[in-house]
Amino acid sequence: MATEKKRLAITMGDAAGIGPEVIVRAWSDPRIHAFSRPVVLGHPQIMQQAVELLGAKTEVVEDNCESGPATMPCLPIGDDNVLSVAQGTVDPRTGQAAYEALIRAIDETLAGRFDGIVTAPLSKAALHAAGHFYPGHTELLAERCGVTDFAMMLYLPPQELPNSPAGLGVVHVTLHMALSDVFANLSSTAIVEKCHLAQQVMHEGFGLAAPRIGVCALNPHGGESGLFGDEESRIISPAVDQAQAAGINATGPFPTDTLMVRARDGEFDAIVAMYHDQGHIALKLLGMHRAVNITLGLPIVRTSVAHGTAFDRAWQGTAEATGMVAAITTAAKLARK
Amino acid sequence: MATEKKRLAITMGDAAGIGPEVIVRAWSDPRIHAFSRPVVLGHPQIMQQAVELLGAKTEVVEDNCESGPATMPCLPIGDDNVLSVAQGTVDPRTGQAAYEALIRAIDETLAGRFDGIVTAPLSKAALHAAGHFYPGHTELLAERCGVTDFAMMLYLPPQELPNSPAGLGVVHVTLHMALSDVFANLSSTAIVEKCHLAQQVMHEGFGLAAPRIGVCALNPHGGESGLFGDEESRIISPAVDQAQAAGINATGPFPTDTLMVRARDGEFDAIVAMYHDQGHIALKLLGMHRAVNITLGLPIVRTSVAHGTAFDRAWQGTAEATGMVAAITTAAKLARK
Repeated sequence: MATEKKRLAITMGDAAGIGPEVIVRAWSDPRIHAFSRPVVLGHPQIMQQAVELLGAKTEVVEDNCESGPATMPCLPIGDDNVLSVAQGTVDPRTGQAAYEALIRAIDETLAGRFDGIVTAPLSKAALHAAGHFYPGHTELLAERCGVTDFAMMLYLPPQELPNSPAGLGVVHVTLHMALSDVFANLSSTAIVEKCHLAQQVMHEGFGLAAPRIGVCALNPHGGESGLFGDEESRIISPAVDQAQAAGINATGPFPTDTLMVRARDGEFDAIVAMYHDQGHIALKLLGMHRAVNITLGLPIVRTSVAHGTAFDRAWQGTAEATGMVAAITTAAKLARK
Repeated sequence: MATEKKRLAITMGDAAGIGPEVIVRAWSDPRIHAFSRPVVLGHPQIMQQAVELLGAKTEVVEDNCESGPATMPCLPIGDDNVLSVAQGTVDPRTGQAAYEALIRAIDETLAGRFDGIVTAPLSKAALHAAGHFYPGHTELLAERCGVTDFAMMLYLPPQELPNSPAGLGVVHVTLHMALSDVFANLSSTAIVEKCHLAQQVMHEGFGLAAPRIGVCALNPHGGESGLFGDEESRIISPAVDQAQAAGINATGPFPTDTLMVRARDGEFDAIVAMYHDQGHIALKLLGMHRAVNITLGLPIVRTSVAHGTAFDRAWQGTAEATGMVAAITTAAKLARK
């Protein structure tokens, strides 16, 4: 059994945020040890502080030690400067350490030492303060892995959606931009690409024979036959046709308000959303804080919690670890394929 | 007690749709008779057919008879032509009859014969086929009542939201238009007007001292301090300031994805949404088929079910009446104020 367990690199994220806490709390959940042997990439003393804060029954050990409920192997990243950063603050030193942990995780995983990466939240502001101008983890991962067709999938595991045995993934065609910029950034090519990526992870990663992919309309009532906008007939429908021609079980465009209800009720395995709020309003209501962020299109497995650093309540020992547990178990599942 | 019961005009809606069925099914619910004495405006024989279809223990009687669980007063509207319209089809005859019922209900309510109107769904296509070119009930009501500042509120009653003792209302600043047309139709004036209307109904109608009104941002992350669009600082924030200056307990703009979760959890009594899907994605997930449509800004009380005619499953005796029961009990509540 032990040999089947996947080796996962868990990056500690920003030391001033809730990353260390959620990792320690997740460690006490037997599910994460059932199929994986996680190793934490971060400063051992920070992890030790989190263990003490939570009174956890685990010991921080060297990274070549056995991984299990009682022992937390830690691959040391960053210098001791991070130890003097105030908890809950943006600082270039913690930003730099989070950056180094991610780079190390990517390189070691590409080299085969790990079977996948799970990232705790980093602070974009701290990352920028350290001189690394990436919008977030995803773009840095894509660049370092040398891929250009990639996407972030927000994934609700089956335990959040009783009617979805393989869970529900949501991919966005456009994401962090003004709503008025969505129109120029929407293309059939981009939609087809997202259908491909969604199909790939739900098929290869989660083992579905023909994942059912629901494509959102852009306009209310799906455009009401052209009365409320023409993006459906001009851009989205042709994309769905192309995806179908490529053998993908994609349908739509559907009015998004009803599509999200149908997805919740188990009619789809993945949703392709046209813009940020379209996907996020539904995801947050369905339990986003327990969602997993999966990077699609990489040569390696990478998952993450969907929440942020929560600087306002970090190091109080109150952070919930459901998202981290789900991120680790999902990474182990994806790494098995 | 009987004198306190409000007289409500229930329009039958489109005879070929599920309107007659949901009225008959709602009639068997004691809650609708507790505070109101409803009268149906429609063709008595159609109502009789629905009574027989459902095997209901009620008798269709003349409109001046007593209203109660065993007797359904019906004010005859339309000629016998509607009797030959095929169920589940769009037809100018049923469109005309639905139009006449609504006009009659408005006029009789304005004249004081009724204390409020509850409408069953009509078919916009049938209404147009009969030569009445209104987008729906709401615009026809506003025109006939002579008002220009009005809005549709979608209202989830308290029984749908355990943390919202007065329920949750959602008003849209823009509604049935292409998403790309939203930008030109968004103004501080329109937002303030919707805040006023929401405040009015939640205060006067539902008795809240200072209803908490949450105003949606337009862009993802609420615009992320101007990084993703400037409508928040240019249009929405000034509107919230104006509303507050007028004594309205409005706050925002807030990122919509998290605002909807906060609203579900009881932090707001009403939400002002900027565009259709922003409100509707949340509403449908929260139980829209049981929601009530309330027209704000009229001199009379008017509620409606939030669902449509459902031609595809009309007259099969399967239609659910939760929405109609909520629409009737909500109208009775509003009429008491």
